[in-house]
Amino acid sequence: MEKISTLIHELHSGNNRALARCITIVENELEGSEEILKQLKPSKTPAIIGVTGPPGAGKSTLINSLISFLSKQNLRIGVIAIDPTSPFNYGSLLGDRVRMSEHFTDENVFIRSLATRGSLGGLSSKTIEITDVMKCAGFDYIIVETVGVGQSEVEIVGLADTTVLVLVPESGDEVQSLKSGIMEIADIFVVNKSDRPGASGFLKNLHQLVHQHNPEKWTPKIVRAVATKNEGVEELFKNIQLHLAQRTTKNRALLYAEKAYQIIQSRRMKSVSKKILTEKISEYFIKGDFNLYRFVEEIESSKK
Amino acid sequence: MEKISTLIHELHSGNNRALARCITIVENELEGSEEILKQLKPSKTPAIIGVTGPPGAGKSTLINSLISFLSKQNLRIGVIAIDPTSPFNYGSLLGDRVRMSEHFTDENVFIRSLATRGSLGGLSSKTIEITDVMKCAGFDYIIVETVGVGQSEVEIVGLADTTVLVLVPESGDEVQSLKSGIMEIADIFVVNKSDRPGASGFLKNLHQLVHQHNPEKWTPKIVRAVATKNEGVEELFKNIQLHLAQRTTKNRALLYAEKAYQIIQSRRMKSVSKKILTEKISEYFIKGDFNLYRFVEEIESSKK
Repeated sequence: MEKISTLIHELHSGNNRALARCITIVENELEGSEEILKQLKPSKTPAIIGVTGPPGAGKSTLINSLISFLSKQNLRIGVIAIDPTSPFNYGSLLGDRVRMSEHFTDENVFIRSLATRGSLGGLSSKTIEITDVMKCAGFDYIIVETVGVGQSEVEIVGLADTTVLVLVPESGDEVQSLKSGIMEIADIFVVNKSDRPGASGFLKNLHQLVHQHNPEKWTPKIVRAVATKNEGVEELFKNIQLHLAQRTTKNRALLYAEKAYQIIQSRRMKSVSKKILTEKISEYFIKGDFNLYRFVEEIESSKK
Repeated sequence: MEKISTLIHELHSGNNRALARCITIVENELEGSEEILKQLKPSKTPAIIGVTGPPGAGKSTLINSLISFLSKQNLRIGVIAIDPTSPFNYGSLLGDRVRMSEHFTDENVFIRSLATRGSLGGLSSKTIEITDVMKCAGFDYIIVETVGVGQSEVEIVGLADTTVLVLVPESGDEVQSLKSGIMEIADIFVVNKSDRPGASGFLKNLHQLVHQHNPEKWTPKIVRAVATKNEGVEELFKNIQLHLAQRTTKNRALLYAEKAYQIIQSRRMKSVSKKILTEKISEYFIKGDFNLYRFVEEIESSKK
């Protein structure tokens, strides 16, 4: 049997096999999960880059291109894909993983897809914990890929230091309808596939939206890209560094507070089962002597 | 200052003024609320009749007619209206209350509308507690009126001994779309305004639906009514008594278990504030020494 302490040690020395094993343990709450999570000590603080956007915008291709660019500079990169439609992820792995194969043999690149269990990377999954595990494995950058729908967007803002929203020229309508939400989320817009017709009109509209918004704060940057040709990737990275230079931790503290609250709540309620409550209440009903608040007192005092 | 113990005593002897005061205290969680709730001792067990249905189906008129019928037999009736569109309820009181005025001067009838605070009679409101208070005031029947939308329907099933679903001949489409849900909820269907065109066709369809369903269990009864003319009310009451004779407490135990769980959860989490968690986490971020699971341990051990 593997020793958890050895595994934790190897994780912190940047061993990809140990990292993969730790993630599996944490993701599935196997024995040792709590110990791993308590022993986490990030050696350096890798920047976390969230990449989100609608399916088909080319997020994976862009990430692929970004990995190539970064690994050439001998940087160590981790990728977490919590987009169920991502080619990094289960199901479509066989077809699309081929494109990524150059990186799978690269010791400086670690890619992991997470089962989302219907939560689309929601707080209920182990995304936060797994990101924490990855922070300890000596990466320079951690890229978190999510599909841009609803809740996951808000969470990515808390998790990531810099959030990149990938759009295509055809995204015009989406931008209009998501206007305020999207403006809050994106630190950098990437207009991918910008060699397509309509790109310049879309870029113009996007520039207008960006400049209407929050003039005091960071003005979101807009990057023109054609990920399949590696175009725009260097500029994207330049803007990521620019944004990282002035990052704050406010959103992250909120996210971790929410997560801490949930963990505390599930711990404190562990001893209470709705099924057993129902059975006990049914017994009182039969005796004809049920009082909700005395019942609650009874449960609470039996705990002490 | 009123003595809570006196108030509780008066409540149990069927004093309507004391009942009204107790409900106000419980509804608004004023001082004495917990004491009242713990001291509740139902003297007899009144039958609880849930009346639900879409707005405009004539629920209030039907209830009005039922009250008249019951109070003639010298029965004591309590009404809780948690339908925000009900004429019993706030807002529209001035106009429609006139119709009810005969009952407002009747000592055997007590009518109370509850502010729903946006929860439409959801579990988060005090409906269960207030029903418990009313159970101690010596009523023979307690009528709970809810509007038939979503969550409140499921709850009324737990709260009521008999659930009456009020429909009108025009409800055809609703019945089709809510088919399975509605069949589970209703013990008795009232087709109100059945002097309108389309009534016989609608009744025929309803009979078919009812007989397709759950042949072993109680087959929902269908009552034709014209509430404005007091037609069908006697038959409705006959069917209510028929259903009450074989009531079970299973759904009620589930509802109270859910409520008990929520009360326990909110008590156990009372000491935990997301705001304070966020502040503490921010401090750790500044020190550069944050670990989610050690943080949770710290919060939990500081509690002991």
